Amino acid sequence: MALKDDLQWRYATKKMNGQTVPKEKLESILEAARFAPSSSGLQPYRIFVISDRELLEKIRTFSYDQSQITDCSHLLVWAAWDGYSEKRIADEMLRTSRERGLPDETTDDYRKMLWGLYAPLGQSWHQVHSAKQAYISFALAIAAAAEQKVDATPMEGFDPVKMDELLGLKELGLKSVVILPIGYRAEQEDWLVNLKKVRVPREEFVIEIA
Amino acid sequence: MALKDDLQWRYATKKMNGQTVPKEKLESILEAARFAPSSSGLQPYRIFVISDRELLEKIRTFSYDQSQITDCSHLLVWAAWDGYSEKRIADEMLRTSRERGLPDETTDDYRKMLWGLYAPLGQSWHQVHSAKQAYISFALAIAAAAEQKVDATPMEGFDPVKMDELLGLKELGLKSVVILPIGYRAEQEDWLVNLKKVRVPREEFVIEIA
Repeated sequence: MALKDDLQWRYATKKMNGQTVPKEKLESILEAARFAPSSSGLQPYRIFVISDRELLEKIRTFSYDQSQITDCSHLLVWAAWDGYSEKRIADEMLRTSRERGLPDETTDDYRKMLWGLYAPLGQSWHQVHSAKQAYISFALAIAAAAEQKVDATPMEGFDPVKMDELLGLKELGLKSVVILPIGYRAEQEDWLVNLKKVRVPREEFVIEIA
Repeated sequence: MALKDDLQWRYATKKMNGQTVPKEKLESILEAARFAPSSSGLQPYRIFVISDRELLEKIRTFSYDQSQITDCSHLLVWAAWDGYSEKRIADEMLRTSRERGLPDETTDDYRKMLWGLYAPLGQSWHQVHSAKQAYISFALAIAAAAEQKVDATPMEGFDPVKMDELLGLKELGLKSVVILPIGYRAEQEDWLVNLKKVRVPREEFVIEIA
């Protein structure tokens, strides 16, 4: 099925039924997230995949009590770098060069240029920038879930400070950014499932300059 | 072809050949971007589709002289709201209610809650938030392009102040966020096309808490 149809099929599922997403479908979703493009290929984020029920109960308490947090099969949490550093950039670039069989020095100039650009922008700019990269990965996970006919609810409504504490993200140099419960819709109990999907009309959404 | 394979096929094309993307493929890409999910369904961004060659030449001058800007078929520019306002939120919610055949008051409580949350966060928070929503749409356009076997280069490297001036975005209450030239790879001249795609390994990228 085409992406366009998958995007029509999906919706922000409001009520899930607790059914488990099979491992191969979960892996397809995670692989789409992992192969997302990112600025300079740095992939400045990681994904936590949580299915521990006690942990999910705790997360729900600081996520506006949204039921999908505990009725999902797995909760995916994108956690982005809390800042760029010359070392973090160097490590990722070295990984790439080595995998490509290129000398370690290959990316020296680019790395210096990039760090010269990033360093003065400061940590809060860094955090916004790494979070944006995480959103690209997040979006591709949403598309992959729809392709697998797995329901998902894109969510920003949680307390990131509490999430960071609970997952020990500070120690890992990460900050939670956005979350995605995946699972299966409970059709009878979901108020949104049968409502029309509405978008800004094409003629208003797209401005052409030809 | 599956999304996973599309993501393997795509790469950040470094050299394009100037060939035109057919209208139906362009429309598929724009539709994926338009049907992207966004926070509270507000879609706080628009897409400019630029194929005017003189305009593209100008854009290239403030985009690190990247050749894809002028060798692409179309340049897609995501421009996000420069801030939330109660009116903007109300207009989008009303559109949705009316399309769904629901009374105008349906979303009153939710709108008040949301504006109560957003208003004190201030305009620079608003801009980051609307930009993140645009990144979801941007990511789905990247996936749709790959599905159509259209090349694309995700780009943040341009001067947003100059872009906003050139496109008259201030008057529209928009700010340029991210751009995507689409077209076709010039295989012989592209240094990246045959290099291995490298990603953080799965075991390092995903942290499971089961």
